[in-house]
Order: sequence, then C-alpha cells, then structure tokens
Amino acid sequence: MSETQYARKNHGTLIVSGPDQPGLVAGITNLITEAGGNIVSLDQYTTDPQEGSFYQRVVFHRRDLAAAIPDIEASLRRFLEPLGMKFRLTNANVPKRMAILASKSDHCLLDLLWRHRRNELPATVPMVISNHTDVVDDVRSFNIPFFHVPSVAGPDKKESEDKIIELLKGNVDFVVLARYMQVLSDDFLDRVGVPVINIHHSFLPAFIGAGPYRKAKERGVKLIGATAHYVTADLDEGPIIEQDVARVDHSMTANDMQARGAYVEREVLSRAVTWHAEDRVIRDGNHTIVFN
Amino acid sequence: MSETQYARKNHGTLIVSGPDQPGLVAGITNLITEAGGNIVSLDQYTTDPQEGSFYQRVVFHRRDLAAAIPDIEASLRRFLEPLGMKFRLTNANVPKRMAILASKSDHCLLDLLWRHRRNELPATVPMVISNHTDVVDDVRSFNIPFFHVPSVAGPDKKESEDKIIELLKGNVDFVVLARYMQVLSDDFLDRVGVPVINIHHSFLPAFIGAGPYRKAKERGVKLIGATAHYVTADLDEGPIIEQDVARVDHSMTANDMQARGAYVEREVLSRAVTWHAEDRVIRDGNHTIVFN
Amino acid sequence: MSETQYARKNHGTLIVSGPDQPGLVAGITNLITEAGGNIVSLDQYTTDPQEGSFYQRVVFHRRDLAAAIPDIEASLRRFLEPLGMKFRLTNANVPKRMAILASKSDHCLLDLLWRHRRNELPATVPMVISNHTDVVDDVRSFNIPFFHVPSVAGPDKKESEDKIIELLKGNVDFVVLARYMQVLSDDFLDRVGVPVINIHHSFLPAFIGAGPYRKAKERGVKLIGATAHYVTADLDEGPIIEQDVARVDHSMTANDMQARGAYVEREVLSRAVTWHAEDRVIRDGNHTIVFN
Amino acid sequence: MSETQYARKNHGTLIVSGPDQPGLVAGITNLITEAGGNIVSLDQYTTDPQEGSFYQRVVFHRRDLAAAIPDIEASLRRFLEPLGMKFRLTNANVPKRMAILASKSDHCLLDLLWRHRRNELPATVPMVISNHTDVVDDVRSFNIPFFHVPSVAGPDKKESEDKIIELLKGNVDFVVLARYMQVLSDDFLDRVGVPVINIHHSFLPAFIGAGPYRKAKERGVKLIGATAHYVTADLDEGPIIEQDVARVDHSMTANDMQARGAYVEREVLSRAVTWHAEDRVIRDGNHTIVFN
Repeated sequence: MSETQYARKNHGTLIVSGPDQPGLVAGITNLITEAGGNIVSLDQYTTDPQEGSFYQRVVFHRRDLAAAIPDIEASLRRFLEPLGMKFRLTNANVPKRMAILASKSDHCLLDLLWRHRRNELPATVPMVISNHTDVVDDVRSFNIPFFHVPSVAGPDKKESEDKIIELLKGNVDFVVLARYMQVLSDDFLDRVGVPVINIHHSFLPAFIGAGPYRKAKERGVKLIGATAHYVTADLDEGPIIEQDVARVDHSMTANDMQARGAYVEREVLSRAVTWHAEDRVIRDGNHTIVFN
Repeated sequence: MSETQYARKNHGTLIVSGPDQPGLVAGITNLITEAGGNIVSLDQYTTDPQEGSFYQRVVFHRRDLAAAIPDIEASLRRFLEPLGMKFRLTNANVPKRMAILASKSDHCLLDLLWRHRRNELPATVPMVISNHTDVVDDVRSFNIPFFHVPSVAGPDKKESEDKIIELLKGNVDFVVLARYMQVLSDDFLDRVGVPVINIHHSFLPAFIGAGPYRKAKERGVKLIGATAHYVTADLDEGPIIEQDVARVDHSMTANDMQARGAYVEREVLSRAVTWHAEDRVIRDGNHTIVFN
Repeated sequence: MSETQYARKNHGTLIVSGPDQPGLVAGITNLITEAGGNIVSLDQYTTDPQEGSFYQRVVFHRRDLAAAIPDIEASLRRFLEPLGMKFRLTNANVPKRMAILASKSDHCLLDLLWRHRRNELPATVPMVISNHTDVVDDVRSFNIPFFHVPSVAGPDKKESEDKIIELLKGNVDFVVLARYMQVLSDDFLDRVGVPVINIHHSFLPAFIGAGPYRKAKERGVKLIGATAHYVTADLDEGPIIEQDVARVDHSMTANDMQARGAYVEREVLSRAVTWHAEDRVIRDGNHTIVFN
Repeated sequence: MSETQYARKNHGTLIVSGPDQPGLVAGITNLITEAGGNIVSLDQYTTDPQEGSFYQRVVFHRRDLAAAIPDIEASLRRFLEPLGMKFRLTNANVPKRMAILASKSDHCLLDLLWRHRRNELPATVPMVISNHTDVVDDVRSFNIPFFHVPSVAGPDKKESEDKIIELLKGNVDFVVLARYMQVLSDDFLDRVGVPVINIHHSFLPAFIGAGPYRKAKERGVKLIGATAHYVTADLDEGPIIEQDVARVDHSMTANDMQARGAYVEREVLSRAVTWHAEDRVIRDGNHTIVFN
C-alpha cells in the first residue's frame, strides 16, 4: 500500500459493492476510461465465483477531477443501479472530517493528532470531545478545538449524549473513540449518522468488556492485543478493522501489560483510522473488507 | 536462550519454587558452589518482594555430574525442605521420554519428529499413539514405534484410554497431544501421572472448543492463533505455555485459515515442548513461569 | 490472499506488464468479459500515474477454460502487442513443474515436499537433485525421484552442471535451490532457461556470501533473517521475493542462530515458492511485484 | 520483564562483569543477603562454562537502601576487585539524567518525552538540544529546557560541539541521539564521558550511512528496519542494543518507507533507552548483553 497515495491531486477513489455478475470490472473500468481517468490501482474481491458478493476499490487519476465528479457519478449510477450495486466516489484530495472522543488516557489521542500533523492521516480534526479535562492542553497545542462534555450516569446520560450529537451534527464524517470510557447508547449510534470507530484493549473476541488486562493476567496469556472495530449496538461485537498483539511474560503485572498494551492500541487504532480515511475499508455485515 | 545448552555434558538444571524469603538465592548458589558446580545461567522471579512466591532455574556445570547428583539432592533437601520449598534437579544430558498422541493431521507430529531427529529437542520418543493409521508410515520412517489405539465413543471410551495408559505407564515422562482429536477423560488425566501438553488451534481464550477456524471466520478476526498449554480437567483452560498468531484477511476462507494456522500450531507446539523438555517451564496454579 | 484459490477449476491467471497508458484495465477486463470470463480477483499496480510501468494480475473463472485459452490468448495478443505490453496466461489447474536442488540440509527441502503433499503448493515435483546423498531416503519416502549429481570443484564443475541441465531440460518450469551449497555458473543460468529461486540465510543485503550466521554473531545483531530471491549472475543480488526475521539474543552462539534461522529459511522459501507457483510474482528489473 | 519494576522504592540494581570463576553467584548473592537485601530478580550469563566471561544483573529489595549503599559497595569491592571483576550498583529510585539531541524530525523525540511524562522511562530529561528550532514548542510544552546549537560545517564544527559539551558536562548520565542528523566527531565522543545512544534508520549492517530508505527501495527489500546502538568512533558500527522491522511492499516509495519506518524507529529507540535507563544493558566489546 502506498501511504502517500491519498495526497496526490486529482485522484478519485471509487468503492463498489453488491451482487457479483459478469462484466462488472470491465463495465466500471470502461466507464472510468471513457471519463478520461487512468486507473492507478485496483483491488477487487468476490466472495464466491458463483453468486458471490462483489467488492471493488479503484483509484484513478483524472485532470480536473473535482469538476468531473458529478458526470462520473451520473454514469456510474446509470450503470450500477440497475444491477443492484452500491457505490461511493470520493476525491482523494478532500480529507474526511474526523471527531475524536477521549477520556483521561492520551496515548491513542496523541498518536492520531501527531499523525494528522505529519500529514499522514487524510483527515481534518474539527474537534476533540472529552468527558474529562486532562487532555485539553495537549489537544489545543495541536491547534485543535476541544470541548468538555462531562458524562453523567443514570437518566441524565441522554443529556450529555445530546450535547455531543449537537457538536458533531453536520460537522464530521466519522467519529473515533480513542479510549473513550463511556458506553454509547443505541440511540446515540442511531442518531450520529456517521461511522464510529473504537479501539478495544484486547484481542477480540478474547476479554470482551471491562478490565481486559486484568483478565489477561488472570488467564496467564503470553500475548496481549488490541482491536479496532466499528461500533454497533452490541458492545465489542462490531466489524473488526484491524488487530495486533505484543508479547508479555509471567513477570508482568496487569499494570505492566496495560503500559505495554498502550503502544499496541495506538498503533492499531491509527492504522484502522488511516485505512478508513483512505476509503480502504468496506463493511460487509459484521465483517470488513480491507484493501491495503 | 541458548538452544544447544541442553546438549552440554555435565550440566545440571535445578528448578526451585516456594514461598519467598531472604537468603534463598544465596543459600542455593552456595550449595551448588560447595558441591563443585559452576553456575552457567540463573533465572529468578519473585511475584512480590514482600511475601511473594519464589521461582528459580539454575543451570550449572560440574565434572562427573551424574555421580554427584545424589549428594547434591541431599544437600538441597536439607536446606530447602525446612523452608517449605520444592525443587527438581535434572541432568541436562538425560533426555526426557516423550509420547506423542496424534490423529489424522501430521503437521505438528512431523515437526516434532523432525526437530527430534535434528537433535534440537532434548527428548526421546519411545512411541507415537494414534486413533487413526494415517501417519503410521511417516512415524516409522523416523524409526519411532507406532501404536494404533482406535478411539471408541460412548461407554467403551474407557477401554481405549486404558490401552493408552498401559502403553504409557512407566515408559514416558510427558505426553504431547499433537492435534489429537479426542477429549481425554478426567480419569485418564488422573491416572497418566505425567504432564500432558496440548496444542489448541486458536488464540485462547478466544474460540474455546471445536471449530475455532470456522468461528474465527465468522467473527471476522484479522489474526488467527495457536496456544500450547498443559491439559487439565477443564477443556482449553489449562496453564498456557506459549502462543503465537498469523495475519489473515477477508479473502481467506475458514479452510485457508486452517491451512495457514497449521504453521503457527506446529511452531507454537514445538517451542512449548522444547521448553518443557529443557525444564524451562514451571507451573504456578493456572499460570506458567517460562524462563527462556 | 486465498491460499486454496489455485485449486479451483476453470480459473485462469493473467499477468500483464508494460508501459502504462489510459484504458489498459478497461481493455483487458473487457476482453475477459467478452471471452465469457468472470473476474474473481484483480490486482493492479502502476509505478507512476504519468509515464509509469503497469503491472496487473487477474484471476477469472470461465467454463471450459482449457479449450478457450488459445482464443483468449489471440485476443490478448491483438490488443496488447501493439501497445508494447507483455502478458502470460496460465490455467490455475495446471500445476507448474518444480525441480528442487539440495545439499545436506533437509529443512527447506522437507518443508517444500510436505506442503506439496498437503496440496498447498500448486506444483508438481518431477525431481530432487542433490550433490550429496543424505536426503535420498526422505525424498523417496515422498515418492519423488531423486538424482545424485556430485559436485566437482575446478575445471570439471561444468561437467556436473551439464548433468543437471540434462536432467532439467524440458522437464521443469522452475528450479528451487533449497540450501543448495554450490554457486551456479553464469553459463548454467543462461542455459537452464527457467526461473531459479534461492534461499539465502540472512536478511539481505546484510551478510552477503558465506557464513552469515557467523557474521551475525560477530556483529551482535538482535534479529536474524532469511531472503528468498531469484538467482542472477550477481551472487545474492537477485530480485528479492520474500524476507522474514527471528529474534535472537546475546546468549545464542552462531550455531544456535543457525538452528533458529532454519525455521525462518523454510518458511520464507515456502512462501516465495508458493507465490511464484501461483503466478503472484512479477519481475521488474531487480525488483519484484508480489500480488498476495 | 516487569516495566514498573524501576519505580519500586528501595530497590537496588547491581551489574557485575568480568572473568568467570566458580563461586561468583554464590559470593555475590551471599553478600547481598548479609547486607539485608532480598533478591527480586537475577539474570546471569556466562559466555562459556570454561574460561568464559561472566555477566550478572541482580535487583534486590532492602529497607533504607540509600543509606546502606556505601557499605554494600565497600563489601562488593572487597570481594570483586581481587577477582578482576567490575561492578556498578544503582538505586532504582534515582533516575538517570538523559539529554536528547534532535534535528527537525520529531517522532523519536516526542515518543521519548511522552513515555517520560507517563513515568515509563526511569530518567529525567534536563535538556533537549537541537541544531534546528522546529521542535522547540513541542519540547517546552513538556516543560523540558530546550537549547538551540546550530551546527556548523567545516572547521567551525568544533565550536558547536564545544557548546554542546558545555551544556552536557556534569548534567547528564547519558545522551540520546533522536534522529540527530550530525555526525559527532571522535573528539566529542572522547570528551562527552557518558554513553551515547543513536537510532539508525535501517536494519544494520544493511544500509550503513546516509539515505537508507532510498537504498532499501533501490534494493527492493520486503522489510525495513531500525537499529538502536551505542555510538562509537566507527559510524553505524557500535554495539547494537535493539532492532526491529516492518513489512513493506513494491508499491511503496522511499518516502512511504520513511513514513512507515518512523514508527519502527521511535519504538526501537524508546525500548533501547528504557533498557539502558533500567541498567539492563551491559556492553561487551562491540556486543551488548541485554537482560530483559
């Protein structure tokens, strides 16, 4: 995968998915060629040669891409809609808008903000929201707006979620939970209307729920892990985007594991967020197709 | 870790465990020095500086070790027993006797036999037992005795376990289940009287029980794993010796994962067996201390 | 990468390379569609959106593929030759014929033969040739023909290379050097006429030439590695297909490193050979494009 | 390795090295026991059971350690000096003083500062020195003093090195070059009087000198790496403390490799610095013994 690809001007990224049928790749690539595009990379995956599902990511270069997008989209619609296919065409030059929700821990948050500052993350960060104020100075040192929305237990939980929705609405294309230690309600997920990515501090499906490092120590595992996934109504059960592990040994306490795990968490979350922002991840029910 | 260490002549390996107390390391190492030993490597771990448990592995060199062992053991007993400590002294030159139980799959079995033939595994293999006959030719090509004990479902299961016990009794120091696809009864584990090491084809505690690759595909994980552990009465819950993982992606079927996972399984099991045979693993309840 | 993909019936693999130009992907995929093929996977890579080189691998499914191949090839030739492009169309059902050259070490050789027997390697093995006789029994236990061609130093070296060429000529599609400890002459490489894959027991370009584990110990590295590459006239300088590493520490001797490195070597070579056999590797000067 | 170990009060770390001889471990541990210490962990390594070199790291707990250190040192001197052994006893509670030298890149620098702020690095940071001013705001946001010493080419190079020596002298226990893009003169290394740790952006000994990512792209490697080592008069030839790698592929440019490599560099350097600060690394000629 070329990591600077997204930075190239006049590059479009097209994601297509739906029921597989003969002629799809040819039809789509014809269309791009006729629209003056030159295909730079193409990844395609079909779940089954007979009656499977079709997933494709195409990056193409075209002069004056921004002006041409409406016409290309219209052609794609004429071709793909009758076939029952969905598509999404994005200008790789237009970064996605990403809100980050954090609590007290800074490791995942800071890694995202650094990568963003290094221009390695094709996204803008219109805001960081936290239920605490520990990270405010760090966030603002990156010139990123910070909003404090204290979390409230019990019946008033809705109130704080309302405030978050109000801040996000219309301003962001996806949300990242960078060790945000609050369970979001189903209602929140319904209303937020954009993908939400979470980092769980274990190798899912091992150690679902709270205290995974403590549970890892109790079970005596020899590797700890982290999992980035899209958030769904089922806690820690959403589609997995990326996972990784680190070696531990008998001498490490649960706190030692937590300290070491932090470096796996930030790496896994940053990778997942980068791939999402680069339109490399397609959701397929509770699975993901990751073209990287 | 020096992998050829075990091959050295006149090397003793001493394992000590028990309640920590001041003077243990000094006392033990004095004893070895007075017995004419020179300490080659020493690993020590204490769970807590106050009131913790003490674990130690010492490798020492001594001329004419074999003849001196009874005296060294007697001194150790005099020093350690009053302190409530346990110890085990072995001559690194005397290989442990290892029985391997297998079914139809050959990957873990062959890796062990091949490492054994390369003199990388400080163990002899007095027998391979299988409930199938698929691997008989392979096993005998290594000049290892093969016994076929068909497994029987239901009430006659005990009969086949009896046959296995009969073959093992007095002939082996530990047993390795190299993808042996039968659950051993609690009664068998009680009677066998030696440690039993199993390889589970998942990253425990994820995907306990049957069909872990199918479950991994269903959950959409991005890494698959394998776990070597001592067998206890609780299926897949015994003390973990070693684990490792391999990367998978959306395009792989459960069968593809199984094929790739086989290479993780054989590697993880071979490492765990080598460490066990080199007296590098100490059981501590449901945990292991691995000095490697 | 789907590892069982190659086993599917009626799957064709098309490799195309040459100067990039608009319309290539569309033209090629049109052609496959018109020929009744359904594209199962497509990987494409262009070195530069302007004036770069174009590399593509397409796997497609078509009923009665074998009968249709001549027509598809003719269409491809008509389209691609005027554009200065090269292509190679293979039936994934027709395994490549692989000769293995070995010396005394068996680890890489046996791993290839095992994977072949497990149907994980889409290749046949018409022969193993060795300059020693250590591995003859192992090879024949896999029902693979073995030929002993002793190596001769000095002026008679040509004679033994002649014998090898005689055995290979017309019988194999590629050659694997599985720790074959002879340097092949430029003349041999010219005459053999098929790709030759070698495994070097270091992380190239570190430790070129003989004795890499000894050199690794001398330099005090913390990781050792292995490199699979196509053989060219420049020793250890050919295009790299795959590399991997393993951790070592201060306590390991050069022999310990060699023992551990063997497991990296066999894994790296087996992966490289599998990818080559699956037509996933394209040579591009001294580089490789690996679609996996 | 327990990562929080260093934080424990009243823990002493003793490093001993020299010619191996019988009774060393016993003698040293006796001494610690007699001084009221309880051994928490002990790592020992002997290069050869006959006439080898002996290396040992002991962590022990003792009430009122600080007050007792002079007496313990005196006893150690009486025992070890006649045997030709060297030792170093440190109070794990007293952090080492670390100066960081940086240039324009911030990834290694920030990772160290951040780990320091998280109390994961048992060191203080009395100063960051840079030949540029790019990182000044970041450094000061961590409340760390920053000094700008522009580098001068040619005959005035000595002048800027003099200024650095002046700042460091007496104020630091070791120096970290966190992607400091100046070659330090032999004279500087002689005068600085404390260990200097560097991070090289390749898997040494591959790609010594400038431009390793460009060279890696040219050679077509499939893994890139980073190496932390002590600096000696021979550029990139000093004793290696730690190395690691990351996977790359054909589609990545040298710039892509550099971007990905940055994350390996920061991880490798942070690990090496932590181990050095925890007295886990012993230099042995051009090798290191790392007890971790």
